[in-house]
Parts: sequence; structure tokens; C-alpha cells
Amino acid sequence: MTDRSHSPSLASPSNPRIRAAARLRARPEREASGMTLVDGAREIRRAIDAGVEVIEAFICEPLLAGEDARVVLDALRASTTPVNSTSETAFAKVAFGSRTEGLVAVIKIPSLKLDRLEVMDGPLIAVIEAVEKPGNIGAVIRTADGAGADAVIAASPRTDLMNPNVIRASAGTIFSARIATAPTDQVRHWLEANGIRIVAARVDAPRSYTDADLTGPVAIVLGAEDRGLGEGWSGPDVEAVRLPMLGVADSLNVSVTAAVLLYEARRQRDRPTHEG
Amino acid sequence: MTDRSHSPSLASPSNPRIRAAARLRARPEREASGMTLVDGAREIRRAIDAGVEVIEAFICEPLLAGEDARVVLDALRASTTPVNSTSETAFAKVAFGSRTEGLVAVIKIPSLKLDRLEVMDGPLIAVIEAVEKPGNIGAVIRTADGAGADAVIAASPRTDLMNPNVIRASAGTIFSARIATAPTDQVRHWLEANGIRIVAARVDAPRSYTDADLTGPVAIVLGAEDRGLGEGWSGPDVEAVRLPMLGVADSLNVSVTAAVLLYEARRQRDRPTHEG
Repeated sequence: MTDRSHSPSLASPSNPRIRAAARLRARPEREASGMTLVDGAREIRRAIDAGVEVIEAFICEPLLAGEDARVVLDALRASTTPVNSTSETAFAKVAFGSRTEGLVAVIKIPSLKLDRLEVMDGPLIAVIEAVEKPGNIGAVIRTADGAGADAVIAASPRTDLMNPNVIRASAGTIFSARIATAPTDQVRHWLEANGIRIVAARVDAPRSYTDADLTGPVAIVLGAEDRGLGEGWSGPDVEAVRLPMLGVADSLNVSVTAAVLLYEARRQRDRPTHEG
Repeated sequence: MTDRSHSPSLASPSNPRIRAAARLRARPEREASGMTLVDGAREIRRAIDAGVEVIEAFICEPLLAGEDARVVLDALRASTTPVNSTSETAFAKVAFGSRTEGLVAVIKIPSLKLDRLEVMDGPLIAVIEAVEKPGNIGAVIRTADGAGADAVIAASPRTDLMNPNVIRASAGTIFSARIATAPTDQVRHWLEANGIRIVAARVDAPRSYTDADLTGPVAIVLGAEDRGLGEGWSGPDVEAVRLPMLGVADSLNVSVTAAVLLYEARRQRDRPTHEG
């Protein structure tokens, strides 16, 4: 795993392939190319497991560590995917975040079109509107995976779902999740067309979430960190719910709100019928 | 709020007071001095509201914004606390994080001794063991505030509770919260001595958290991001519970786990007696 005698094939940080990959940190470049970066062995492993197309990979042998890294390398080397050994200096151009495991992949972005999202029977869906922080978006996707939600939809997102930091914060669960993105009006229309009830988290809602029915086809809608839900989520067919706020703060982090609501939905869905 | 004609009293980043405050970013300096930094208008406002002693403040007038900033400045100027106007260059030495509001305070660290923690009647307590990321610690404290938990205890912490990034991530709720820190064995002894049941979150627990009784005096114990709970939380008097994990991931972020458990405890505590 730490074969330092191995001569890196890409030693210079100004190598054109390193520079091309590094440019994928920028959203316009991701959107123009249809590609993004995945940093981390666990994340790349989950991309491969989900059948995502890996275009090329960069490895930095001295940094490689862990079982996931070994599995990923074996899978990549058994495939036709180009695997580029790099120097630490070159690797630093494509890696990001505080923790690095010596593996970064360039992948093809899967379709995120809402009209391609498969409608499940009686689905539990998380909708996040205009959320900006990649860490929060990724955390919602990871929690939705744990709680068994059927899909996560980003309505009018300020950060694209394929931002490398979203992928990282999702722990790679984004690849197996059903995800889509569309403007808020289209998301709302899609929910209505598919007979999915809308339960919106609002700090000023009169009703506690524990009094809401979160069974059946339901979308839990969460607004941005700084401004909450927009006007697109009002009307008689939107049920607003709040979390009790018993301390000095007036709101919770959006990923925390999502976790409480999604796991309450899971609890209600799993409990024996007619229990209170 | 943006009086650019105001001449900063501390213009140089190498000013001794700026440098002394900046050193408080380091844990040894905080522990030696008994002081820490608070960045952000909302956070400083909550410190003042909670009666925390503010030793001095640094303001950068061109950056000041918002109602909280105005309230804080008025409160500081009506007090005997020294308020230093700084240049943007000097301010950058004491500010941190991506969002800055032109206000940083140096405060006296309150006592975090466990034996000084007030024992409430039938308390709900969150215990986090060996958690490292300041953002996670702060998020747990903010959630505990919302869910109406009575205290948060850091057992054998790897990051001190008064790390400026913990304060920031707690949105300043750390100042009104009852918090304490001690080695794990002392925390466990304290819980037992006070008749507080221990419910520990473990990914491999046989029982779902929804089947656990979270009413009465109970401590919800959560382990670190990377290694879970240590050996100090085993034994017949520890009830292990898990969250359902229905997707590809095997664990959730510690602050997400805390949120689900604390709000489920709140739900159980608030529901009408004899409901299911």
C-alpha cells in the first residue's frame, strides 16, 4: 500500500490531466463537462457499487490506506478505467477536504432530471429547497439513506448535487440514492401530479411534527439555512409542521431538522397499525 | 453601521492585543488563560444574555451588519468592556470561519466541572464521548437546546468545549446550556450516583431506539465519529439502542444520531400518558 519506490506517472501539478480534473471543482466546469470529482475510498467504492461510470482515477500511493482503498483499486485495475499514479504534490491539486485517502475519481454525472425519477408506491421523499452548504445537502442525503427515504429532490438548488463536497458529506450514499433536481414550481407540480402530500417544515408552524401523519405518499420539504422555505410552498394543500424549540435558539440546522422528520416518518411507517 | 471615516484604534495585525487574542485559537492557550474567542453577533449576544463575562471585544466597522450586531454593540458600549475598533487586516487575525459579522469577543471560560453541574429532576442529558469535530459538538449542543435537554456532558473530549468553532456551531446556545466535561469513568460514576439511566447509541445494538423508554432520568450517550463508544459504556446497566439503517451506509453523523434520539425522548416525554 505504500510502495514509495513506485515512480509516479503524473508527477507535476501542472500536468494537463491533473489540471483538467482540478477544474471540476468549479460548478460551471462540471455542468459543461458532465463530470465531477469523487474524493475518498468509501465514496468511490459506493459509486462503483451503484454502477456509476468512472472515467479516470488518480492515486497517490504513499497516502493509500484502508480496506475500501484496496477494494477500489482492485476494481479499477480489473476494469478499463485509466488509473494515474501521481506525486503527492500533483495529488493535492485534485484532492480536497481535511482527510484524504490517496484516491480521487472523475465520474460521469448521472441524470438528475425530475421526469426520470421513478415513482415508488407510497413514497417517502425529502425535498430541500435552495440549500447552499454542500455539507448540509450531503448530510440530508446520508440521513435519507439511513431512514429509508425513497428519493431526495433538490428544488431550485443554490449548490449542485454533484458538488464534490456534497458527494463527500453524503459518504457516497448519493450514488445509490434516487435523486433529482428541478425548479421549485416543477417539483411542486411533480409532487401533486403523483399524489404525494406535502409536509413543510416551518419554524412558525402551529402544529408539531409529532401530530402530523407522515405515513403514505409524503414529501417532507425543508428550506434553506438562512431564509427558510419560499413562497412556492404555501397553500391549502401544504401542511406546515414545526419542531419544538425549547431553548434560546429559534431554529435548527437543516440536516438536523431533516433527520428528526425523516426518522419520525420511518417510526410511524414501521409501527404496528392502530398504535397511538 | 459602516462608518468608514472612523479611524481604527488597532490598525496593525501585529498589534500585541490582536496577537494575544489570536493565540486563543489554540487549545493550550485557552486552557492556560481561561479565555476563549467568540465570533459572530448572534453568538456574542447569547453569551451576554447568559451572563458570560466579556473581557474585551474587537469590532471592524466596515463589516458590521445586522440587528444582533447593533444590540451587542449597544450592550458592550454601555458596559465597562473595552471595545477595540480594528482595521480589516487586523480583524482578520482574530476572526475565523467563512461568514464574519465584524464582531469578535474575548470571554472568560465558565466552569465546566462535572461536580458543579446542577442535577435537575428527571433530567434528559446528552453525553458525547471523544467527539473530535467542533462542528459536531456544537451541533449536538444546539440540538440539545432545541429539544429541551437539561445538560450536555463531554466525556473524555478530544476537542475542548470552548473551542471557538464549537461555540460558533452551537449558534451561541452553549452559553445558556448546562455543560460539563470529565473523563468517561467520572461521567459514568456521576450518572450512576444521580440515578440516571444510560441509553447508549450503538450501530450494532439489537434494539431499535423507538422501543426504548426515554422518559424519566436518562442520559443518551453517543460515541465519536470514527470509533463509536468505548469500553467505558458497557455492562448490564447500559441499554444499547440503534437507529434503523435501511440504505447502504452503516452509520449516521453523530449530530444526526443525537437529534433523532433527543427529539424522540422529547416526543415520549410530551405525549399524553398511556398513549402507545
